[in-house]
Order: sequence, then structure tokens, then C-alpha cells
Amino acid sequence: MKKRDEVETAALPMRKVGPVQVTGSEGAMEVRVPLATFETPLWPSVERGARVTAHAGGICATVFDEGMTRSVLVEAPDAPAALDLVRFVKAQRRALEDRAAGTSRFARLKEVHIEVVGRLVWIRFAFDTGDAAGHNMTTRAADALLAWILEQRPECAYGSVSGNLCCDKKASAVNGLLGRGKRVVAETRIPRRLVERFLHTTPEKIAELNVRKNWMGTVLAGGVRSANAHFANMLLAFYLATGQDAANIVEGSQGFTMAEAEGEELVFSVTLPNLIVGTVGNGKGLPFVEENLRGLGCLEPREPGANARRLAVICAAAVLCGELSLLAAQTNPGELMAAHLTLERGG
Amino acid sequence: MKKRDEVETAALPMRKVGPVQVTGSEGAMEVRVPLATFETPLWPSVERGARVTAHAGGICATVFDEGMTRSVLVEAPDAPAALDLVRFVKAQRRALEDRAAGTSRFARLKEVHIEVVGRLVWIRFAFDTGDAAGHNMTTRAADALLAWILEQRPECAYGSVSGNLCCDKKASAVNGLLGRGKRVVAETRIPRRLVERFLHTTPEKIAELNVRKNWMGTVLAGGVRSANAHFANMLLAFYLATGQDAANIVEGSQGFTMAEAEGEELVFSVTLPNLIVGTVGNGKGLPFVEENLRGLGCLEPREPGANARRLAVICAAAVLCGELSLLAAQTNPGELMAAHLTLERGG
Amino acid sequence: MKKRDEVETAALPMRKVGPVQVTGSEGAMEVRVPLATFETPLWPSVERGARVTAHAGGICATVFDEGMTRSVLVEAPDAPAALDLVRFVKAQRRALEDRAAGTSRFARLKEVHIEVVGRLVWIRFAFDTGDAAGHNMTTRAADALLAWILEQRPECAYGSVSGNLCCDKKASAVNGLLGRGKRVVAETRIPRRLVERFLHTTPEKIAELNVRKNWMGTVLAGGVRSANAHFANMLLAFYLATGQDAANIVEGSQGFTMAEAEGEELVFSVTLPNLIVGTVGNGKGLPFVEENLRGLGCLEPREPGANARRLAVICAAAVLCGELSLLAAQTNPGELMAAHLTLERGG
Amino acid sequence: MKKRDEVETAALPMRKVGPVQVTGSEGAMEVRVPLATFETPLWPSVERGARVTAHAGGICATVFDEGMTRSVLVEAPDAPAALDLVRFVKAQRRALEDRAAGTSRFARLKEVHIEVVGRLVWIRFAFDTGDAAGHNMTTRAADALLAWILEQRPECAYGSVSGNLCCDKKASAVNGLLGRGKRVVAETRIPRRLVERFLHTTPEKIAELNVRKNWMGTVLAGGVRSANAHFANMLLAFYLATGQDAANIVEGSQGFTMAEAEGEELVFSVTLPNLIVGTVGNGKGLPFVEENLRGLGCLEPREPGANARRLAVICAAAVLCGELSLLAAQTNPGELMAAHLTLERGG
Repeated sequence: MKKRDEVETAALPMRKVGPVQVTGSEGAMEVRVPLATFETPLWPSVERGARVTAHAGGICATVFDEGMTRSVLVEAPDAPAALDLVRFVKAQRRALEDRAAGTSRFARLKEVHIEVVGRLVWIRFAFDTGDAAGHNMTTRAADALLAWILEQRPECAYGSVSGNLCCDKKASAVNGLLGRGKRVVAETRIPRRLVERFLHTTPEKIAELNVRKNWMGTVLAGGVRSANAHFANMLLAFYLATGQDAANIVEGSQGFTMAEAEGEELVFSVTLPNLIVGTVGNGKGLPFVEENLRGLGCLEPREPGANARRLAVICAAAVLCGELSLLAAQTNPGELMAAHLTLERGG
Repeated sequence: MKKRDEVETAALPMRKVGPVQVTGSEGAMEVRVPLATFETPLWPSVERGARVTAHAGGICATVFDEGMTRSVLVEAPDAPAALDLVRFVKAQRRALEDRAAGTSRFARLKEVHIEVVGRLVWIRFAFDTGDAAGHNMTTRAADALLAWILEQRPECAYGSVSGNLCCDKKASAVNGLLGRGKRVVAETRIPRRLVERFLHTTPEKIAELNVRKNWMGTVLAGGVRSANAHFANMLLAFYLATGQDAANIVEGSQGFTMAEAEGEELVFSVTLPNLIVGTVGNGKGLPFVEENLRGLGCLEPREPGANARRLAVICAAAVLCGELSLLAAQTNPGELMAAHLTLERGG
Repeated sequence: MKKRDEVETAALPMRKVGPVQVTGSEGAMEVRVPLATFETPLWPSVERGARVTAHAGGICATVFDEGMTRSVLVEAPDAPAALDLVRFVKAQRRALEDRAAGTSRFARLKEVHIEVVGRLVWIRFAFDTGDAAGHNMTTRAADALLAWILEQRPECAYGSVSGNLCCDKKASAVNGLLGRGKRVVAETRIPRRLVERFLHTTPEKIAELNVRKNWMGTVLAGGVRSANAHFANMLLAFYLATGQDAANIVEGSQGFTMAEAEGEELVFSVTLPNLIVGTVGNGKGLPFVEENLRGLGCLEPREPGANARRLAVICAAAVLCGELSLLAAQTNPGELMAAHLTLERGG
Repeated sequence: MKKRDEVETAALPMRKVGPVQVTGSEGAMEVRVPLATFETPLWPSVERGARVTAHAGGICATVFDEGMTRSVLVEAPDAPAALDLVRFVKAQRRALEDRAAGTSRFARLKEVHIEVVGRLVWIRFAFDTGDAAGHNMTTRAADALLAWILEQRPECAYGSVSGNLCCDKKASAVNGLLGRGKRVVAETRIPRRLVERFLHTTPEKIAELNVRKNWMGTVLAGGVRSANAHFANMLLAFYLATGQDAANIVEGSQGFTMAEAEGEELVFSVTLPNLIVGTVGNGKGLPFVEENLRGLGCLEPREPGANARRLAVICAAAVLCGELSLLAAQTNPGELMAAHLTLERGG
């Protein structure tokens, strides 16, 4: 019989899918992508996307930006004092940078964004966090900055170390607009004959479905800064296989699919403005995680942040593969009764 | 060396937390709740919430409603034809119910909601699905209904079996407003002295922080129908331990925390309008899942749906425990540098 | 010199634009549409849309649904009591209908939607309100229903006669999903040669711009259930000219533009799910308003509601004209420096 | 009989309300505020708020920031080229500032925000615009910047001069987060006895209603970055009376009401992050507008922008007065049947 506090394990099914061919800002690579999930039809779906994109020359993935955030909450005595606080924080940018740098070898303050409601002030800090996703590093740095600000402005009171403008693991607009994690675009061009051969559909059908389902349908649903079919499925499976804090799929899944028929090609991309991944930190020491990160080439000696960016572009490429495959399946009513239920889930 | 297509396992750390005391619409129970996560500080956090609520007499959890959804997309030739289609679908409600019932032993059509943009028509079906979360059952039924509608209205064309108004694994407003999964409220009343003893804070501080962080902060972030600190963390860990399709934490985490100081008590509740859980279906046959579901008393012979509702109230109670604990921690700046980084994650 | 409480007048510029040709659910009509605005370049813009659609055979406008809403807020002692209240309200539907009908000659209860957070209950009533927009009629009926419910459930307490789930003059998702005011689609098909001759562009360019600007751009902006260029401009000018409560442009402007190139035609539509207009009530007795309503044929002896529906389709048609004209202008960079600044505003 | 193209006038009822006492960042003033509206019960409602706040020592209004925006849309050949474009725009900040300054005496480029989806790039420019609201000035400057960018990057193509990320007259999250128009907080502290005497309620009741109705209710409704009862009513009436482009109430009404009972006082504020007003430009030359602006002291010789800021704080103060009065009325069920229908509208 198990002891009360024994740590057990939840053994999720995992398979490596691919190879997925990736080029772009983090270099060229060909990787087999581990996906851990209860929804095993996801594997052949991503596999199909990997195959057609490889035949088409691969997926070009570009990291546009990165940074991890934490927003503190401060109560000023009144609105004019709130304005004073805003000006103080802006003027002390250099001092804040120095204090942040003192809390960690890697944390570097990148941006400060401030919101005011009445006399309440939210200060959202964004940090570079090297190869870590950076949740803890960021909290530690934000704590230090908050303590220092409250020392300097004794008329102001502690509100919270996290005022939900961060915005961690909650769907919102702020992360997409101001950034949280890595901002990545993965893109591919697939000739019509490959679309027809591997995906049993046409560029035009995918383009039309993408507008109607992903953009119009999500808007109708009252979605927020999101337009895709099932990013969440690929993100979850990838995050679990690589030791990520998988609750970050909440904001991670807020991304955009774009599909246009151009000449004899399908131009297809996924844009992930909130990809929160790291190669060091919680969970990364588990044997299966370490093996997977190593297999993806993300534990190599590189400059700080480069391994995490490599992981991010691989993740985005896997999202593209699964997204393309499901959209293709949904263009074709004949395919659905048969294949959708066995090979796809969700979306 | 591993074969190419070998299924491996991702072994996530898992611990049972509690006991959590629950009463309410699904009866009284005392359970130890399994949570699988890389973020192991979650365990003592939920444990603390379990302890204080047990001392206060437990958590009352109420299921308000349930149903699983899928929205199909149809193209009518023009807007007047779209209006005809809307009227036809409403008039044929009985026929649709019969057809849906024919696709499964458990699927029962409950509600039909229709949206129109120009000549495009989204038809969102909600079904009872017994003890299953119901993703596949619902897709199969929606497929059948869509095929029948297109037969009856040959002037209309197939758009998609899923038009994103469902809205599966995407953050949106529709699921909260129209329902998806189970709608559950878990509520507790905690005397001031227990708040002080176990949570090192006061009812007033928690109430104020809840308004400022969870409601105001999330609104500032551009959140959509959501106001909580970290529902996603508890949902993820519970979903993984019980074999749920954990990508559903995206909509599941869109819920509401309420905290009010009333007399000498803290009245604290979590409202989860989109709790998608089941006790049968994908993933439920894995040994650790089955053991966990059995330990929670969710594999008993009961009327269809009762095991899943029991699972839902336990899940909501676990969410309450973790939410209360983190909020309490964030009221106290002294606690943060020490405890937050080691015991909490996210929020 | 003016006395302190003298009522003065704000004399806004107004011009009649058109004729606009309309067919569809409210019959065929050809009307000149009055628009009152400080932004007079709006007039030639709508005029251009009127001209090209008239040449193309007019605008087909369809009313899909109607109803005016008010949500009351009730505090139950706890969540189980909230569930009791929900069941009571559902069970007493007939009694509620009778009481609502007793408050006005026209108010008829159509729908009841309930939301619960913890122990708080929002009850959103939708009413038919004849030819009135129905703000006051609806408030009076909701007041009566709330008073009766609180009499029947003395354990529950008054929260508010309006709990913001109505949702009056605030941008939200609820009005589009559940309805508020009239739901109207206005649609037209314009041959390519007319697009080129009157709008100096092509169907393809308008279709592409509509996806990128109205759908993608609004999603990026964190918009909610909306995808258009400048519905608000036409609504404001039409509302002011016809005595409407123009603050309702806030929700009224949450609508959808659809543009597709099909064969040699542009299929163009505007969908307005929240068009709140009336032909009786506040402001309708002012001489210029009465003249305008009469000129639009909206003061004729008709069955209750028919004059207001006629007003709604004319309004939607005017919105289509202005939307089409601005989108066309924005497809063409050469046109912008010259014409946009003098003839268009906003968007 | 009227000629076809004759410009007529829509004569809206208008009254001056107050005096409203204002202090804060734009100096001390006591003004009677003109409000033009069909919903004349708004007048006594705002009047009541003006009276109670004057007795309490006035309203302190603070301008936090200002700027007017326009977002252009550019198509890059692929995502890497989009990244090149992003870098180019950031690197050329000085050149862009110079070109913007060349388009107008007042336009000054303040901020550049860039969003990417696939290969599409939205560039959102924010400008100082002196005393003008700045719609046209901003469009002209954005046009010039776009033309120059396309010259420098010939591989990129024109998308639109306005890509809806601006985001003009559409409810969204971007304007609140990144700014559009003036960001103003108006705040007052009212002793309990004045709340009781003038508003017939208590600070605690207003504070509780504000949380439940304005914050919780709006979140439930799926609102976006907004929490108030009826900002739109006051904004509309003020905008019409002062010659503003009143369609900007769509974003203007996205603001926040805060009410807290502190000691023996009510601390009450309204935060308006998107207040778009000007004292020069379209509509300002109409006699009644000029008279109203003069009466408000907004046509005095001041440094550029100061008159518009003065107008903004007066507007925010008027919003506070009407918001406070309606909330007070809604706390009291006895008052509603009698007074609400005659004195208030909407909310």
C-alpha cells in the first residue's frame, strides 16, 4: 500500500513524430518531435503535417522577440500620487535594471509597462531570462523591484506581487500585444500537387476554411486575440514531453493561423505570440525530459537563450504540422466520419 | 535503441493531496486528490487549502448544468436562404433529437444555438454525454446532424464539421455564456480565526486582493470572462492525473473567484462554467488513471453522468483549495520572498 | 443672456443621402437616408455606396431576430440557494410572462438567461417591445419581475435592477451571442464592372482587405465580436437623424463585414447583431426626427414592430453603403492622400 | 420644398449642467457643462453628481498621457522579410519622426508598436496632435510614413493605410493598453453624510454595487477592458455639445469605475484611458460648439495641447458625476420604480 505522501508517477503515452524539417532564425534542423498525450490520434495528424512540409522543403521558423513578465500592484494614496509613481518608475529605469540584474545571473529588465485605475498602479516588468522559461526568476526580480519601489515611495502601499496583468496562465489580450515568452512565426509554402497528394484537398479550400472557421468562427465565439483550430493540442503534448509548465498553454494557444492560396502554392503559417518554453528549470531534470531535450539538440553549449529559442521554433513547427493536418481534414466532409474520429481530436 | 514508432511514456510526478472534504449536490465525500505536475510546489499549496477548508466544515460544491458542444458551419446561397435554414433547424428540433440519439447510447441533443454572418450559418449543438467528456460522441452526432441538414437543404453547402463556435480548447466568451462541460460552483465559509491560523491573513485582505488582482487585474489585461489567480494550475494537474484531455484547461481556466468578508467569516467561492471532465473514454483505461478514478469514488455503479459529476465537484473543490492558498500568500508581502518561490507557482 | 436652466439646441449638420434601394424581409423600398454628423465627408462616402448598390439591383436586408434586454442582479444566501433560484425562475416562466405583460401594452417576455457566480445570480430578460427601442419599457418590466421574484424568494436580496449583463451601451460578447435589439443582415452582389467603375477597385482587392483589416486587424487589436471598418460612423449619423439613443452605437457597432469575390461578382454583406432602433419613444417627437421618420416611411399604420424593423433594415443598408465605400478607398494607395482625407473619416 | 443636397440641421436638446468643480493637473476651474442628448433625464442625473462633488470639495482630474494613433498594414514576402521590416522600422525611428513632423505643424511621432501575423505587418504609430483630436493629422502622417517605408522596402507591398489596430471607433483592448487619445483619471472623496444626504445611500452600498455590477457584471457579459455603468451616455452628450467626433464614444466608453468605502468617506473615481477630444478641427467652427468651448474656457491662448487637456478633464469630471448618480440610484430598490425611469436612462 502506498504511503500518504509518496510521490507516484502519471505515465502518459509519448511518441516521437517526424522528422520535422525546420529552417529559419535558429538554423536548419531535422528533428523527431516528442509528444506526450492521452489523445493519441494527435500523433498521425502531426506526422502527416511533418511529411507534407518536409516534401515541400521544410518549415521556416522565425523568433521575433522574447521576454518573461510579472506585474506588481501598488496602491497610491490618490490619482495624483499615482501619476508621481508612474513618473518615478519611468525616471528610475536604470536603477530598476541594476536591481533586477542583481537578483539572478540571467534576469535582465527589458520593458516596463504601467496601467492605472484610480489610485491603483500596475507595473508590468518584462525580463530576458536566458534559457529558462523564467517564471521564478521573474517573480524573484519583481519582488525585489517592488520592495525597492515601496521603500522609495513610502506613501504607497503593497498591493500584490502579481496583479494579473502579467498575465500568467490566463487568456487575455495583454500578452499578445506586449509580449510574454517567445514570439514565433512558422511558415511554409506547399505546392498544390503536394497538398492534393498528402492532404487530399486544395490550397483554396484550406484558405477559405481558415478564414471562416479560425478567424470568423473564433470572433463569433467571442475569442480574444486568437484564430486557430487546435494549437492547444500540440502545445500540451510538446510541453509535457519537454518538461514545460503546461498550464501556459492557456496563453500559448492564443495564436494565429494564416492560409492563402497564391499561384500554385498554399502559403501557410502559424504565429505564436506567447510561446513560453525553457530548457532549464523545473521539470527539466527528469530523465525522459532530459532525453527529449537532448534529442532535439536543445542541451548544447550555446549562448544563453539559444537553446530555448531552438526549442521554441521546433515547438512552433510541430504546431504548424498539426494545425495544417486538421484543417485539411475538415475541408473534406467525406473524410470526417471515417478519419476525424480516429485520427483527430478537438478543434 | 528505441524503434521509430515505439510508444514511450512521459512519467510526470504525481501526489495525492488532502483529504479534501466536499458536500453539496453530489453528496458528501472525503477524498485525497491526485495531482500530476512538474510544478510540485502546487502540492503543499492545495494541501493547505484542503486543511483550512476541512477545519471550516468542508467545501460545498454544486453542479448547475452540463452539456458538451460542437458547432457545424454551413454556407447558404444568400442571407434570406440563411434565414430559411435557421427556421428549418428550429422547426426540426424533434427530428434532430432523434437523429442525435441514434448515433450513440448516451448522446442526447439538449440545445441548439445559431449564429449568422452574411450567408454563413453556424449551428452549435449541445448534448448530454453521460459519463464521457464527450468530444468524440459529440463530433459523431454533429456529423450526422450536419449530413442530414445538408440532405434536406440541398441549396446549402458543407462548411466545416467544426466552425470554432464550439468552442473547443480556445478561450472565448461563448462557452461561459452558453455552457460547455459542467458548470460548477464550489463555496466555503471560513471563520476569521482559521483564516488567521492557517492562511496568516484576514478575510478583508483576501477580499480586497481578489477584487483588485482577479477582477480588476484580469480586466486590465484584456481577459475574457475570467477572474482568478491560477485555476489553470490545479486543472492541469487534476486533468493529467485523471486521464482528461488536458488541453481543455484553456476554456476550463476561464472561471471566477469570489471572496467577501461577512461578519467574522470569509465567504470564498470558485465558479467554473466550463469544466470538461469524464470518467469514461480516451485515457481512462491507463492503470494509474483507473486507480485514481477509483480512489475518488468515480467508477461506482451510478446513473449515467453521476460519476462524471462527482469528478467535477472534486475537481472544483481542488481548484478552490489551490486558489485560496495562493491568494492568501499574495496578501502578505513578508511571505512572498520566502514561501511563494518555493511553494507556489504562477498566478 | 441665457437663463440657467434654459434648454438650448445643438444644431448638427444633416443631409439626406441616396436614394438607397432596399429589398428583403421588410419589403422593397427606395429611400433617401438622413445622416446627422460633424464629419460631413461621410455623406459622399455613403452616397457612393448607395449609387453602386442601386446600379447592382439594390441591397437585400433581412431581419433575423429582435428583442430588448435588461438583467437584474440577486444575491442568494449561498450557491445551493442560487441553484434553487435558478430552478424557480425557470419553473415560473409563465408567471413571469404574465407579470411582464401587465407592465405595458407592448412588452412581452421572450427569453430568460441566467448566470451565476458564487451566490450571485444575474437574470437577463429579453422582451419584445413593439416599435419602441424599449429601454424604459424593459426597465419597467424588469423592475416588476425582480420585485415579484424577491417577494417569492424572501431569502434572496436585491442586488441591482441592472447587473451589466444586459449589456446596455457597453461593448461585450453577450449581446451578439444572446441578442439585443434587432439582428439584421444587409447583403448585395455587385458585378465586377460596377466595382471597377464606381469604386475604382476589384472584388478580389476588397475581399482581401476585408479579411486582413476587418477580421485579422480587429482580432489583433483585441476586439470583441466585431469585424468592420467604421460601422460606428454610419450608425451615429443615422441614430442622431432619427432620434435614437445614440449611445447604443457602442454595442451597435459590434458587427461583421463579409466580402467575397465569386465569379465575376463581389458578394458583400454587413451583419448587425445589435441594432437598437425604434420609431416611438424619447426623441421621436422632435420635428426634424418626425419628418425624417416619415420620409423613411416608418410612421405608417402597420402591425406593432413593423415600422421599427423597416427602420432597422434602412439603417443596415446605410451601414453597408458607407462600409463598402471606405473599404474600396482603402484598397487603393493612390486614392488615399487625395480622397480619404477629404471624403472619409475614421476606420 | 428642400433641395436634394441641402444641408439641414438636426437640433438636439442641450442644457448646461453644474457648476462642476474641478481641480488637478489642468488647474482649478468651476464650469457649467453643456450636454446635448435626446435622453434628457441625463441632465438632472449629472447635476446631482455635480452638486454632491462640489459640496465635497470638487473633483480632482489628472491627465496621465496622450497621443493619437493610426496603424498601417504592410505585406512582406515572407516571415523573415517581415522580421527585416520590423528591424528596419525600429532602426529608422529618427527618420520616421522627421517625416511625420514634416506633414503638419503639430504632429509629432511618439510611439511605434508593431504586430506580425505570418508575413503581414501592422505598424501602429502614435502621435502628439496638439489641440486637435487628430484623426486627420494622424492619417496624413501615417500615409506619409507608409509611403516612405514602401519606397525603402520595395519588396514589401501596400496593405492598408488603416489595418484596424489603430483602433478607431471599435471596442478593443489595444487602445487601453497602448493608449489612444487622453488617459484621464477623475477622482473624488465624499464624506458619508453627503452621500446620505444627496445620494440617499451609503459608501458601502455604492462600493459593493460597483464591484458586482460594473466589474463582475461586465466580465460576465464578455466585456473587454471596461467596467462602468454608463460612461457612454455622458460622453455622447458632451461630445455632441463640444463638436467632437462622437463615434469615438465606442472606445471612449471603455473605462473603469472604482468605488471604495474608506473610513467615513466614499473614494470614487472614473478612469478613461481613451478620451478622444479636441478644441480645433472638424465641427469646432459651428456657432454653438464655439460658444460651448469658450464657456468651458477651452479657447484661451495656451501652449499647444493645453486647451484639449482642459476639455478632457472637464469631460472626465462630467462622466464621474453621471456615473456616481446612476450607481447611487441603483443601490436603492425603492428609488428605482419612481426615479430611475424618469431621471436615468440606460446603464
